[in-house]
Amino acid sequence: MPTAPAPSAKRGRFITLEGGEGAGKSTQLRRLADSLRVSLHARGVELVTTREPGGSPGAEEIRGLLVTGETGRWSATTEALLHTAARRDHLERTVWPALEAGTWVLCDRFFDSTMAYQGYGLGLGRELIETLQTAALGGFRPDLTLILDIDVETGLRRAVARHGGEDRYERMDIGFHQRLRDGFLDIARREPERCAVVDADADLDTVQAGIWDTVATRLGLAQGLAS
Amino acid sequence: MPTAPAPSAKRGRFITLEGGEGAGKSTQLRRLADSLRVSLHARGVELVTTREPGGSPGAEEIRGLLVTGETGRWSATTEALLHTAARRDHLERTVWPALEAGTWVLCDRFFDSTMAYQGYGLGLGRELIETLQTAALGGFRPDLTLILDIDVETGLRRAVARHGGEDRYERMDIGFHQRLRDGFLDIARREPERCAVVDADADLDTVQAGIWDTVATRLGLAQGLAS
Repeated sequence: MPTAPAPSAKRGRFITLEGGEGAGKSTQLRRLADSLRVSLHARGVELVTTREPGGSPGAEEIRGLLVTGETGRWSATTEALLHTAARRDHLERTVWPALEAGTWVLCDRFFDSTMAYQGYGLGLGRELIETLQTAALGGFRPDLTLILDIDVETGLRRAVARHGGEDRYERMDIGFHQRLRDGFLDIARREPERCAVVDADADLDTVQAGIWDTVATRLGLAQGLAS
Repeated sequence: MPTAPAPSAKRGRFITLEGGEGAGKSTQLRRLADSLRVSLHARGVELVTTREPGGSPGAEEIRGLLVTGETGRWSATTEALLHTAARRDHLERTVWPALEAGTWVLCDRFFDSTMAYQGYGLGLGRELIETLQTAALGGFRPDLTLILDIDVETGLRRAVARHGGEDRYERMDIGFHQRLRDGFLDIARREPERCAVVDADADLDTVQAGIWDTVATRLGLAQGLAS
């Protein structure tokens, strides 16, 4: 079974995109993937985009258990364990082999979502989530995590306008969403070298430019940008 | 969400039955349940029998992921995480509420199986499994764990005769089964107050009598036995 590849010049880079409801994560992920593909192509490097929960056949089956059925179907603790099981499978089958082959991986949500949603939002606390992640993943971490930050009420208005409020997390009270936002910001404060907070309140093009600037600078793609 | 009920005179007792392939666990579980029901009925106490993985609607769905599909579908680590997620759900929805209500619970396999199969048999080691169990269950433990012990070759002969070798663990090499047996015995050595090893090599009636004697003595049912 694959294990986390050791960091090296040849190893691909692992970038994760995080944020609460209505931060525009999906749109920005597509745009960042397009820019990254162009920049990496010039260097003969490929990009894979993936998502959590899911991203491998087994993890997508676990996702099915997590996203279907009624709210309250799983407790926060069981949910955190299922997310962690899916994450381990996703890493072993998709992410680690790609990085090992030199491919870059861009992932929609990763362990910071478990920390923010279950740890901060649902109140399990940092320690339990950290223990689980360390037990399941060892010391493996993204090379760069972009946290899209938006005012809670603005984000919820956007999310509800988009889906008609069908998402189970969107139906949580405003206090939950505030804890979620504070959680993501706290994660960024604790790991400033890995995380970058992006103001997602601006228009899409401005947010996209901010994200690209961060990625290019932090991961040494500045030359690629000029091409 | 329910939490583990504190030990008290009124709280039900939690008994788990463990063992490798071909130890006669299912037969002995039925026989022990029958004897326990009679003994507890005289005291106005009920018994619930349950199993792992499974034992609650959510955990049975997770069981579906674990027991179907091809061998090697999940790595040992992912498997341990899925078992732990199922266990948490089973405890919250089935075991803890029953114990809280004063009902006794008899369970076919519990966390010692994760330790023996994934920790010892598949080589994940004690520490990882212990960390996961503590994170997921807190300090909750069975009141009594019966470990059915049998010579590996005898057990495999019995298991293959019964199922025609359809079980995925039965198809593992003999070294795996030896590690599994040694693992269960090591668990029993480390926690002699919780665990009792039962020699499962004898005929069914002798094994049954040994199990009942252990349960009655350790859990104070000796009077019930006489009725």
